[in-house]
Amino acid sequence: MVMTSKASSSSGVRRPCATEDSLAVAGGIIAIGSELLLDGYPETNSLFLAEGLATCGIRVRWKMVVGDSLPEITEALRAAVRYAEVIVVTGGLGSTIDDCTREAVARVTGCPLRKRPHLVEVLAARYGLPSRPLTAAVFRQAQVPQGARVLENPAGSAPGFVMTWKGRLLIVLPGVPREARMMFEERVAPLLRARYKNTEVLERHAFHTFGLPELDIQECLHDVIAQSPDIRFAFLPSPLGVSVLLTRWSADHEIRGHRGRSSGSAAQKAKNEDGPMERVVRAVRSRLGDAIYAEGSRTMEEVVGLELVSRSLTLAVAESCTGGLIGHRLTDVPGSSRYVDRVLVTYSNRAKCELLGVSDQLLKQYGAVSAQVAEAMAKGIRERSRSDVGLSVTGIAGPGGGSSKKPVGLVFVGVDGIRGCVIREFRFSGDRQTVKLRASQGALDHLRRYLLS
Amino acid sequence: MVMTSKASSSSGVRRPCATEDSLAVAGGIIAIGSELLLDGYPETNSLFLAEGLATCGIRVRWKMVVGDSLPEITEALRAAVRYAEVIVVTGGLGSTIDDCTREAVARVTGCPLRKRPHLVEVLAARYGLPSRPLTAAVFRQAQVPQGARVLENPAGSAPGFVMTWKGRLLIVLPGVPREARMMFEERVAPLLRARYKNTEVLERHAFHTFGLPELDIQECLHDVIAQSPDIRFAFLPSPLGVSVLLTRWSADHEIRGHRGRSSGSAAQKAKNEDGPMERVVRAVRSRLGDAIYAEGSRTMEEVVGLELVSRSLTLAVAESCTGGLIGHRLTDVPGSSRYVDRVLVTYSNRAKCELLGVSDQLLKQYGAVSAQVAEAMAKGIRERSRSDVGLSVTGIAGPGGGSSKKPVGLVFVGVDGIRGCVIREFRFSGDRQTVKLRASQGALDHLRRYLLS
Repeated sequence: MVMTSKASSSSGVRRPCATEDSLAVAGGIIAIGSELLLDGYPETNSLFLAEGLATCGIRVRWKMVVGDSLPEITEALRAAVRYAEVIVVTGGLGSTIDDCTREAVARVTGCPLRKRPHLVEVLAARYGLPSRPLTAAVFRQAQVPQGARVLENPAGSAPGFVMTWKGRLLIVLPGVPREARMMFEERVAPLLRARYKNTEVLERHAFHTFGLPELDIQECLHDVIAQSPDIRFAFLPSPLGVSVLLTRWSADHEIRGHRGRSSGSAAQKAKNEDGPMERVVRAVRSRLGDAIYAEGSRTMEEVVGLELVSRSLTLAVAESCTGGLIGHRLTDVPGSSRYVDRVLVTYSNRAKCELLGVSDQLLKQYGAVSAQVAEAMAKGIRERSRSDVGLSVTGIAGPGGGSSKKPVGLVFVGVDGIRGCVIREFRFSGDRQTVKLRASQGALDHLRRYLLS
Repeated sequence: MVMTSKASSSSGVRRPCATEDSLAVAGGIIAIGSELLLDGYPETNSLFLAEGLATCGIRVRWKMVVGDSLPEITEALRAAVRYAEVIVVTGGLGSTIDDCTREAVARVTGCPLRKRPHLVEVLAARYGLPSRPLTAAVFRQAQVPQGARVLENPAGSAPGFVMTWKGRLLIVLPGVPREARMMFEERVAPLLRARYKNTEVLERHAFHTFGLPELDIQECLHDVIAQSPDIRFAFLPSPLGVSVLLTRWSADHEIRGHRGRSSGSAAQKAKNEDGPMERVVRAVRSRLGDAIYAEGSRTMEEVVGLELVSRSLTLAVAESCTGGLIGHRLTDVPGSSRYVDRVLVTYSNRAKCELLGVSDQLLKQYGAVSAQVAEAMAKGIRERSRSDVGLSVTGIAGPGGGSSKKPVGLVFVGVDGIRGCVIREFRFSGDRQTVKLRASQGALDHLRRYLLS
């Protein structure tokens, strides 16, 4: 759900489209690959490309996916040139015969493919002499349209290229995400920044919240939104919570300098801190308070890890319905071995008794999914592991196992530490995987709040 | 990487594009949402839409993403009508003022929006009387272009609609994935099947392999590919292994009948079993043998679960570098509480000693990442949990902790059961998350092979 100041003030009135306001250069992305059309592969290159282009002053207005098909890539390029000033093409540059992006660009621009001797050398050094047809095909990658500037591939074999065509800038990158990303960052972005240095660039800020419904957040920020007509607010709900994304196209080139270099000057920083974006960031931060668990690209597991490290605390986890997901998430963070001592997935009641000392009587009296058992699990794991903090989760992930008294989605989490044991109850909706994900997030958020308070 | 028979036989020769061969109806998808352009949300509705359309005889040749912008949706629709006979639009049908798909369709088709009284009633019943502007806006959803047929929403508030325009079929669905999926399956697919009953439909089969590199699989299937010119082979590598996807557009309407209904007649089944697809499926199955861990939509964790259930075995897991991911994956399967007894993430050496009985001396002599410790972990978890099978993993996920003798990506997995303990060593590449994922897959595959042998 996307809101601007006009969206919240009235209903039924057509507002000017956000994309019409901007002075940024119009960009388009064409992703090529039959696997992106029918084999269930989501297209993801366009995500970091759109982000990267925005920081260079180019606003992506559309993206398109077509298969590895010469006529269809050709059609896409012909359509693209009508609707964008900068066109980024990704994919179809490999060595197999299906890869026909080079041919399509040559056909549509009228610039025939030419084998570049230095690319033949680079490829020969990489692959050795051709020993079978598959490797011979590698040398197709040395062909580049006449007049195009080669973009060397810092991470793979297929080079990219850039050329102008009908006054448009056509940038062609490989489809392998790592290669496309590195080539964009190292070769393309500097080129674009130099070319479009007087356009608007994107400023953005992301807040990640847990525990507040989307509508409550919108209401809570209602007047902040109304007072910030040049900032776009997007509310993105997921099982991990609701993220609030602020974006603003700005002609303030200090931002670009600040972002483009590793460190800005003190004057630049001061300027950014007092800019319209920063003022709104501060307002949102104070409105949403501790519902915000992270900002920017930080994750809940990173935040929890930082809190544990800064307090020199160790953690032990007793999971039930989440089945190991909390441990998995905690250990996705490099260096987590400093604070994660152990994680026990006590899926059976027997495991809860043997490993955590939860009494049979408690399990019988209250059931495995109860505040009482969550408490016994948190205390048990903390005591037996001699860790500083114990975290427990018990719940019903579904689809079976629910009842009217204890429905699917009922989850208890407990934290035991120096300040005693605190239990929290959740009722989550969704399928089994979603309940697990929400429960893991609820547990980590409960732990975060315990550590902060 | 996509191959057809011609791709493997020569290099440099332009083959006819696969999409040109087909007699299927050309389809296109327009996904609408500013969050799909710049907020890092991958577009996923098109994945199940393309699959669903294919089973109705419509081949998606392109897809396009545009923001919530009236002029840009209008442009996309104008372009689409040139390149597809069936156009599916998804998104922009909600109640906020950003949602302008209805207006764009009305503008481009010249069919003005009309409030449908029965939709007003449905929405009023759902939301009650409007109490604030946000809920009043809900009634925008009752507006549908004149002459369009309403598609009721089985899972949410925004109705869809279908209409013909310039001889094209225009299908407009909500953007919420669950709503779009249900509306497509329940309302749209039957309509399309009736309309396009004489076109080709898609037959497909997926194999999922682990342990063989992509090039080895291609070589192993070289002559099968050469002998099947009408079947497209796609090889899709991921950290979970390489999937081999076979697709064929077929005019054989028994397939459609067989797929469309819950059970086909015996004659239909016999026919399918002897069809060209089935013959190739059998050939691939016999060539790749036990490297295939699953077919169709089945996952590794489901396969392992089925093997355990069919043998009435219980499982206990001792994880180290995977941090809980194996437990998480095993417990994603409904009913896994029948065979998963417990999962211990023994991240610290102390936890390995206390919980699994791994001796201090062993840890000192060989190090935590060693075949010897993997064996002690597998035996320890099996013995202490009194489960039928013990599975262990120990390795270096990185980015730190590696050495020249024991590099990042070195992983040992062990299975202990009635046939003794078997250890397998892997060397995985990739970042921390990728190594964890590959290690979890390697461990589950090792367990699968142990159970099968």
